[in-house]
Amino acid sequence: MTLRLACLQAPATDHPDGSPDPAADRDANLAALDAAAARAAADGASLLITPEMYLTGYNIGAEAIAALAEDRFGASAQAVAEIAIRHGVAVLYGYPERDGAGVVYNAVQLFGPDGVSLANYRKTHLFGDVDRAAFAAGDDLVVQAELGGVRLGFLICYDVEFPEAVRAHADAGTQLLLVPTALMRPYEYVPRQIVPARAIESQLFLAYVNRVGVERDFVYAGESRVVAPDGRELAIAGEHEELVIADVDLADLTTSRAVNTYLRDRRTDLYGASAVTPGARA
Amino acid sequence: MTLRLACLQAPATDHPDGSPDPAADRDANLAALDAAAARAAADGASLLITPEMYLTGYNIGAEAIAALAEDRFGASAQAVAEIAIRHGVAVLYGYPERDGAGVVYNAVQLFGPDGVSLANYRKTHLFGDVDRAAFAAGDDLVVQAELGGVRLGFLICYDVEFPEAVRAHADAGTQLLLVPTALMRPYEYVPRQIVPARAIESQLFLAYVNRVGVERDFVYAGESRVVAPDGRELAIAGEHEELVIADVDLADLTTSRAVNTYLRDRRTDLYGASAVTPGARA
Repeated sequence: MTLRLACLQAPATDHPDGSPDPAADRDANLAALDAAAARAAADGASLLITPEMYLTGYNIGAEAIAALAEDRFGASAQAVAEIAIRHGVAVLYGYPERDGAGVVYNAVQLFGPDGVSLANYRKTHLFGDVDRAAFAAGDDLVVQAELGGVRLGFLICYDVEFPEAVRAHADAGTQLLLVPTALMRPYEYVPRQIVPARAIESQLFLAYVNRVGVERDFVYAGESRVVAPDGRELAIAGEHEELVIADVDLADLTTSRAVNTYLRDRRTDLYGASAVTPGARA
Repeated sequence: MTLRLACLQAPATDHPDGSPDPAADRDANLAALDAAAARAAADGASLLITPEMYLTGYNIGAEAIAALAEDRFGASAQAVAEIAIRHGVAVLYGYPERDGAGVVYNAVQLFGPDGVSLANYRKTHLFGDVDRAAFAAGDDLVVQAELGGVRLGFLICYDVEFPEAVRAHADAGTQLLLVPTALMRPYEYVPRQIVPARAIESQLFLAYVNRVGVERDFVYAGESRVVAPDGRELAIAGEHEELVIADVDLADLTTSRAVNTYLRDRRTDLYGASAVTPGARA
């Protein structure tokens, strides 16, 4: 069972002083998504993954986010669903979600190639003021979907830096963890060290899809990548806009888990109670 | 509060076909430890750290290990304590421990510069046949000691590849985690990616001290390193025998934890119950 992914390392809206027209940026991002979906389909990919808050930009200010936040099935969602249908490719996109009570979340939604929503995940670990000023935290840690025979899971940016979140996915059967992100410099250790560590220690495929460019005081780090459970980098992007293709083969997951037995070698009998044993003095 | 460490990246006993005289190897390792402690003291270090199973070698076969295993306060331990006293340096060494019931553990022990045993830790996560054929697993996950105003913790090799083990140390107040290891090729992703990830995600200093050379079918990978909680590599060794010096400054831990707020940003309300929320279909 092989799934071909297209990872859109997208540029920020490139307004270092703040955008004069956030709604126009959103429309431009939808147009760029349509073009990327066409390229993904031409490359044979069945899933297109975009960065965190792809639809509107991320570091655009809490007011702009509140103004652009939409219902999960709002007008922008319908536009994304139409893109998925038009190109016959599933699309995972980041956006600001407003729920029925008016609460705003940092969310990602997956539309299948038939335009059906397969999953919606709200970021559970908020990062600093940029998240806390604009979003409430989600409370559902493990959200999954099936696509092409592969069990997908979803996290957003800072979430993946917590090993507990990835462990929960592994235990729930996630085979390919999709992580839209908006990671800025100087945190390059996240794609270079933490992301590979997560894939290896919890034995799953992991696609980490970042932005590039400047958004107010953030300079995004790029370096999107797809990592296999044995640590191989199946695809890696540089510091510029790029559509990266990777093939995820579930046979490699089976092989890796047979050799790398982290999940069954855990001492779960010890982690529940983190009892301290001071070194006894002789 | 600064602690200067000396990390002995020691050679394996270099018997690809098995040692003809394991007891002689042990005596040679004790002599090399004495020389290393003299160098560490001359370099101003107050703590010398050796690899996993330093005393006897690691991949020497279960029979040789059983023959060489000693009580925590046996003759070899006394020789190590004398080395610590002679050079006025604390010594952490790996050895096969036999308890009062005859059970053998893969252990490390810390002697203070006064020859007092400050801690003894038994590996809790056994790795493959090499461990399981020779050792029982320890059941005390968090063992700590104080040295020079720094709270030390101890893990051994495979233990550190489990994020839960390092989290338990961070929660118990460990500031500097000491990890003697015997890591072989091709697992270089452990020092390069997993070890730095652990130091960053759980916000502590981490010293990972490996072997080099050949021991039967194992080729040790070297690459010992000391990593700060902000990801800086304070010291890094190559692929040859080396005594690596690093200064650990607790002020850097305070600074890093103020910026990198992983420990308090955890969603511990979600990790207890790893409930699966399937993506609802529209």
